[in-house]
Amino acid sequence: MKAEIITIGDEILIGQIVDTNSAWLGKEFNKIGIGVTHIASVSDDADAISEALLQAENRADIIIITGGLGPTKDDVTKQTLADYFQTKLVENPKVKDWITKIFTNRKLPLIEANLQQAFVPESCEVLFNRNGTAPGMWFDKGNKTIISMPGVPFEMKSIFSEECLHRLQKKYALPFILHRTILTCGIGESFLAQKIETFENELPDFFKLAYLPDVGMVKLRLSAQHTDEQFLNQCMDNQVKKLYSLVSEYIYGENEETLAGNVGKLLIKHKQTLATAESCTGGYVAHLITSIPGSSAYYLGSIISYANEIKTNELHVSEDLLLEKGAVSEECVKQMAENIRKKFKTNYAIATSGIAGPTGGSPDKPVGTVWIAVSTPTDTVTKLFNMGDNRERTIQRTAIQALDLLRKELVKL
Amino acid sequence: MKAEIITIGDEILIGQIVDTNSAWLGKEFNKIGIGVTHIASVSDDADAISEALLQAENRADIIIITGGLGPTKDDVTKQTLADYFQTKLVENPKVKDWITKIFTNRKLPLIEANLQQAFVPESCEVLFNRNGTAPGMWFDKGNKTIISMPGVPFEMKSIFSEECLHRLQKKYALPFILHRTILTCGIGESFLAQKIETFENELPDFFKLAYLPDVGMVKLRLSAQHTDEQFLNQCMDNQVKKLYSLVSEYIYGENEETLAGNVGKLLIKHKQTLATAESCTGGYVAHLITSIPGSSAYYLGSIISYANEIKTNELHVSEDLLLEKGAVSEECVKQMAENIRKKFKTNYAIATSGIAGPTGGSPDKPVGTVWIAVSTPTDTVTKLFNMGDNRERTIQRTAIQALDLLRKELVKL
Repeated sequence: MKAEIITIGDEILIGQIVDTNSAWLGKEFNKIGIGVTHIASVSDDADAISEALLQAENRADIIIITGGLGPTKDDVTKQTLADYFQTKLVENPKVKDWITKIFTNRKLPLIEANLQQAFVPESCEVLFNRNGTAPGMWFDKGNKTIISMPGVPFEMKSIFSEECLHRLQKKYALPFILHRTILTCGIGESFLAQKIETFENELPDFFKLAYLPDVGMVKLRLSAQHTDEQFLNQCMDNQVKKLYSLVSEYIYGENEETLAGNVGKLLIKHKQTLATAESCTGGYVAHLITSIPGSSAYYLGSIISYANEIKTNELHVSEDLLLEKGAVSEECVKQMAENIRKKFKTNYAIATSGIAGPTGGSPDKPVGTVWIAVSTPTDTVTKLFNMGDNRERTIQRTAIQALDLLRKELVKL
Repeated sequence: MKAEIITIGDEILIGQIVDTNSAWLGKEFNKIGIGVTHIASVSDDADAISEALLQAENRADIIIITGGLGPTKDDVTKQTLADYFQTKLVENPKVKDWITKIFTNRKLPLIEANLQQAFVPESCEVLFNRNGTAPGMWFDKGNKTIISMPGVPFEMKSIFSEECLHRLQKKYALPFILHRTILTCGIGESFLAQKIETFENELPDFFKLAYLPDVGMVKLRLSAQHTDEQFLNQCMDNQVKKLYSLVSEYIYGENEETLAGNVGKLLIKHKQTLATAESCTGGYVAHLITSIPGSSAYYLGSIISYANEIKTNELHVSEDLLLEKGAVSEECVKQMAENIRKKFKTNYAIATSGIAGPTGGSPDKPVGTVWIAVSTPTDTVTKLFNMGDNRERTIQRTAIQALDLLRKELVKL
């Protein structure tokens, strides 16, 4: 069973937006044992859409189309589908009622462009869009299925989850695919590959291993496909166990887990609390921590001391130290971590100070120089990095390394 | 002149990573007047890569391939290209020296897998990768060009900018494409479309208008193509002027400008300073502000008061108020904004407090309830929102609305 994705929109080709729908759909399809084998992004142009659809139909069983269903003139997907399936657009009373209801509830005037969204190709089955005015559309073509959904991610996601999944499971008899991703931090891709070379060579034929490098980490994804679900689960468990026995010191979690989520779990498990004091990361460490639902159970807050006067006034970093060693120094980041821990009365604290750039570097401390400190109930550990000359990457890498430094302290508990 | 992009990697199809390379390349191509007409993502599989390449060659002049060049066994792009172009892999001494130098400098052992990266198809021209060990490859096939680069974004970007751009400009005589994006905030897509309907209908034939909705905003992109660059620039200026005359109150900037960047420009222009006090956004407002290079000129810092005790101890929100009205209240967010402004001695301050969810809601204050305050030298404005039930979106939307609320105060100066 093969699925293909077609995302429609000039804004994708011109690079104004990043297509995140495909990645989300790829994950969802894999969960139900359908492999996505091709993704195409094409323009808001009838010919380009038809050609992509024709090619996809020649290769795949299920084709998902997103985008081009807005109320504005640049969107042509609906008319193109009507032409492709040689049918006409007809008004759907249920969709019309829904659109009217949305506008009435929001006390907004209903304009003609919105009402046009109630017109759908006659041969399709309408997929209800509870988050918007553009309905999804399901087309059966023998054993093949073509689905069209809006490009707005949260509208697309709810239509797919609520309207498509159960219909797909009903229509097709599906094989079984299993994925498991082992998350590592603190080791480069080729060194990791060397450490697990024998393991990789001895993997059964129905297994596949992929290395996915990410900012500050490498993810190892094991994929396997088999008709016997129980057997497959057992094999996967065995292979993952082997992997742990080889590189356990670098593994911080599995699958969708994040470093911030893992740190949160450890803090909850050991009933510990956390505060942060950020300079160069400017709130990004706090953002990663508070992106985790339930983080208020262990995270109290932060002082972002972007200016030196905030470092002295709020974090009590000594002015002499700032004059003598500078804000980007081991001593400064140590004081920041220790003082925020005392001030916020937490068990642990993270502090960062560095030169994110593009300006502010010197021969002594080039752009990318970063000091990180983690203060614990018994000690304060510090580490120096050079994160390179890209501001965005330096902020991201620093946050990841800061969380990993904290994690290494927490696993000692 | 048409370009197509092929991104290679199982991790893209399975949705483990989002393909951001295509969007970046789309932008770069447009800058030099080459339109990207198709993007395909395929598996790390020789047949899939060859088929995608063959199809792209039938449609386009320039084909960019990213991904599948790593040192590990799952990457097959290089061998596939050698087979496709009926050539063989040969060791490139310059690449070998470069790889050796990288590993020597980093004091890392050089292993066989890394040295394999010095082997490239004999018929290609090597594109130097100053950020990594996998070189880029340039293939001439008559008037067509096929370029293969690593999938790691910062390696790909520097190879494209430094090695490909000037070669492309030299090889092809390029037409002229102009894009201009007008950024609006605070008005929905269909209302905007209604306000500019006549403008849209009267656009010249060589113009195209696209609506790009984003979190809390709608971007309007005008695109035009013409052989006469001066004429095109003039037409674009005229159309943009018309647009401003219709919806100026909603426009905050153009093209790549961000709301945080715009706010920064206004603060610098009027020599004003800013602090933040964040609860539900947990550092995300500070992160957006400090993502702007040079933000230390006007941004002093933040107190992230995730816990109520930080709100009382550090931001001096009265305990009675928290008991009576709760942390998610107009009064609380007003005190947070006013007190951080005084404490950090800034001209302006932003404060946020809300229920990001998924838990913590009540009938009175459902998940998504958010109060925002902006304190100015003369006043404090507050606004209540319901941001919906998605934690990530609520954090993002709140940050955007908070910055827009500040912007509206700053444009009064």
